[in-house]
Amino acid sequence: MNTRHDCQQLDLQDPLRELRDQFVIPAGLIYLDGNSLGMLPKATAARVAEVVAQEWGQGLIRSWNGAGWVDLPQRLGDQIAAMVGAGPGQVVATDSTSINLYKVLSAAMSIAQQDAPARQRVLSERSNFPTDLYIAQALCRERGFTLELVEAEEIAGRLGDDLAVLMLTHVNYRTGAMHDMAALTAAAQAAGALTVWDLAHSAGAVPVALLEARADFAIGCGYKYLNGGPGAPAFVWVNPLHAERFWQPLAGWWGHAAPFEFSPDYRPAPGIKRYLCGTQPIISLTALECGLAVFEQAQALGGMTALRAKSLALSDLFIELVGQRCQGHGLGLATPLVHEQRGSQVCLTREYDADGRSGAYAIMQALIARGVIGDFRAGDGRQHRDILRFGFPPLYIGFEEVWQAVEQLGQVLDSGEWQQPEFNQAQAVT
Amino acid sequence: MNTRHDCQQLDLQDPLRELRDQFVIPAGLIYLDGNSLGMLPKATAARVAEVVAQEWGQGLIRSWNGAGWVDLPQRLGDQIAAMVGAGPGQVVATDSTSINLYKVLSAAMSIAQQDAPARQRVLSERSNFPTDLYIAQALCRERGFTLELVEAEEIAGRLGDDLAVLMLTHVNYRTGAMHDMAALTAAAQAAGALTVWDLAHSAGAVPVALLEARADFAIGCGYKYLNGGPGAPAFVWVNPLHAERFWQPLAGWWGHAAPFEFSPDYRPAPGIKRYLCGTQPIISLTALECGLAVFEQAQALGGMTALRAKSLALSDLFIELVGQRCQGHGLGLATPLVHEQRGSQVCLTREYDADGRSGAYAIMQALIARGVIGDFRAGDGRQHRDILRFGFPPLYIGFEEVWQAVEQLGQVLDSGEWQQPEFNQAQAVT
Repeated sequence: MNTRHDCQQLDLQDPLRELRDQFVIPAGLIYLDGNSLGMLPKATAARVAEVVAQEWGQGLIRSWNGAGWVDLPQRLGDQIAAMVGAGPGQVVATDSTSINLYKVLSAAMSIAQQDAPARQRVLSERSNFPTDLYIAQALCRERGFTLELVEAEEIAGRLGDDLAVLMLTHVNYRTGAMHDMAALTAAAQAAGALTVWDLAHSAGAVPVALLEARADFAIGCGYKYLNGGPGAPAFVWVNPLHAERFWQPLAGWWGHAAPFEFSPDYRPAPGIKRYLCGTQPIISLTALECGLAVFEQAQALGGMTALRAKSLALSDLFIELVGQRCQGHGLGLATPLVHEQRGSQVCLTREYDADGRSGAYAIMQALIARGVIGDFRAGDGRQHRDILRFGFPPLYIGFEEVWQAVEQLGQVLDSGEWQQPEFNQAQAVT
Repeated sequence: MNTRHDCQQLDLQDPLRELRDQFVIPAGLIYLDGNSLGMLPKATAARVAEVVAQEWGQGLIRSWNGAGWVDLPQRLGDQIAAMVGAGPGQVVATDSTSINLYKVLSAAMSIAQQDAPARQRVLSERSNFPTDLYIAQALCRERGFTLELVEAEEIAGRLGDDLAVLMLTHVNYRTGAMHDMAALTAAAQAAGALTVWDLAHSAGAVPVALLEARADFAIGCGYKYLNGGPGAPAFVWVNPLHAERFWQPLAGWWGHAAPFEFSPDYRPAPGIKRYLCGTQPIISLTALECGLAVFEQAQALGGMTALRAKSLALSDLFIELVGQRCQGHGLGLATPLVHEQRGSQVCLTREYDADGRSGAYAIMQALIARGVIGDFRAGDGRQHRDILRFGFPPLYIGFEEVWQAVEQLGQVLDSGEWQQPEFNQAQAVT
């Protein structure tokens, strides 16, 4: 069994340990919710202040060119591309994940309508992140397509010749389970369908090889593992095979071939730039740039390979310690033990009791009161259990923190303190 | 003729003068481009720093509730609503102008398709801001509608019984001409059509009365007269008559009735909240909040009525002084002299010479080199003239600055310095 001392040793041996110093770590806090909102890099505050005071305040309109605001979505896109196995000029950082999904799912559906009009089905996973399902519902409604939702293990059996698009989130937000992107992409394409991958819980968390997997479209989030700040702009990638086949519907001026000609006629820009729409929030993009800069530093320390090794070591340790320290409290594991099927988070479960209550929400509230932040996700109503979710972003989480988190969780469960009324009040909105 | 001394007196008598002190004014700069990117309020830097260091850095995920991030789009929306004659709960600050236009134009077209399927024409102005025309083109292409573009004076004659939507920008970006919103709305509705108004150059610049005009839909920009910073989130208003009639197509989780239930089925939120889509850029929204706060301060000094009076006094003064100081240099006026038809900017014109060159770009470059910032807009190819554009945001522009700007323009023209090669290089992108 790993003791606290063992974990301290693991931190001392961690080749990525210095990256933790790049982040603001609130005193007394163990933050295992970076899969929801990543931590603040130390460099961000000064850079954001400079953009506000100097680039905006003094430079004003001149900064669109003078400070390079005008191509920030592409510059950041190139950095993200390198992290997800895409090429330069193939990604832009822009808008929200939901909006980017709308762009690429529209594009995929339109390509399917052109190439194979009989294919009018979009397939996804029932436990996909809801916004993905909502966007797909709206588009299917509009285009007369059907949206079919299945369990992960049913996907392979539902790739029929009426399938237009397989739309999946690579790492499941609720369980941390990771799909085999290359295998599912190959299977979907063999069945004649296109693939859309949501990398919200993948970019910066696990290795992704979009071009190698021959994926068709991908989108992802800037505020989780990329540490871009609350509501940071998201990103979108389109395989160059498809990039110019389609006018994406959000055809705003930033996606025009020559936006400052102010022509009344839309002429889409070549390549990924046509996936831009309107003017982007420069201050928020700047914060995202600072988040990405930490990954540039990580390159010298082994990059994504080293980050992935540490991430798995952290989640393995958490699972092992929970098994030892928290026995007898009805905790289960929703996250796969197999490394190839695991993202960078671990999800514990608690079954419903006779009254349909799992206690998971109150347990998480009690844990948060002790300074360990994870989050709660309600069950999906089919499995009679709720979820306690813990994220392990390898850039800043340490092994001793994992030990401390489990120790606190053990104390919460042993003491029964989570049953106090204060932890059982109405659930907050996030 | 107004002398510099006269203008100094006007500044001393200006009841809104103290508001200028709320802004960072770069030394030696006369900034007449706030209609493109508004100036930085002094309070913004500290507030943004607080959001980054405290709310994000220390509060982390807890700030969604603890710092009120979760309803920032609605809170800011209520402030904007008060500025454009809409009611509380009717506006959200979110996404970009282009994306918001997509939402409301989709909604308007869908309502038309339901109520009057024979109406399949969208009417707009040829010199509308291009992104509006691009979004309309994309939607018309997708829905089988036609987009008809006409001159402003032709609009009234084209409101036929096949018209679905009249989509106009209230104040023209290229000329500063302002439409009569109430009259055109009434005429369009009498003809059975819906109206969509773009308030990009109106909100914070001129009085707007959306409910009084019985408009149907409106959108607007956060980074011009609202001083929200580069690429600040935009806003969207829907007349409560229509708000719940339609699932807008960007049906993301923030527009769900209960986003944190994580239900797989989309259930649109009541009212304007369904016009939200994905997670919003909190840092950029915070900067917008600081921009709006200055308008709250302006309330005590007469609010929009006082701002409008000053704006017209500034643009009247500019027009008068240009007429006196810059005679004989081929400048024309694209902006209406009639107050009711003028926004908060003045656009001067220069005709093309035999080689098709107006010199307007070089004149603006030479003026900028002297510390007076306006901008250049190329002619639209039909009128053989280019445009020198000057914005007069009444929150921070003073009368003496107007005098100085015209004096500098006069010197640029008198000296012929704008003909130097350095001012005639390739046009920058903005």
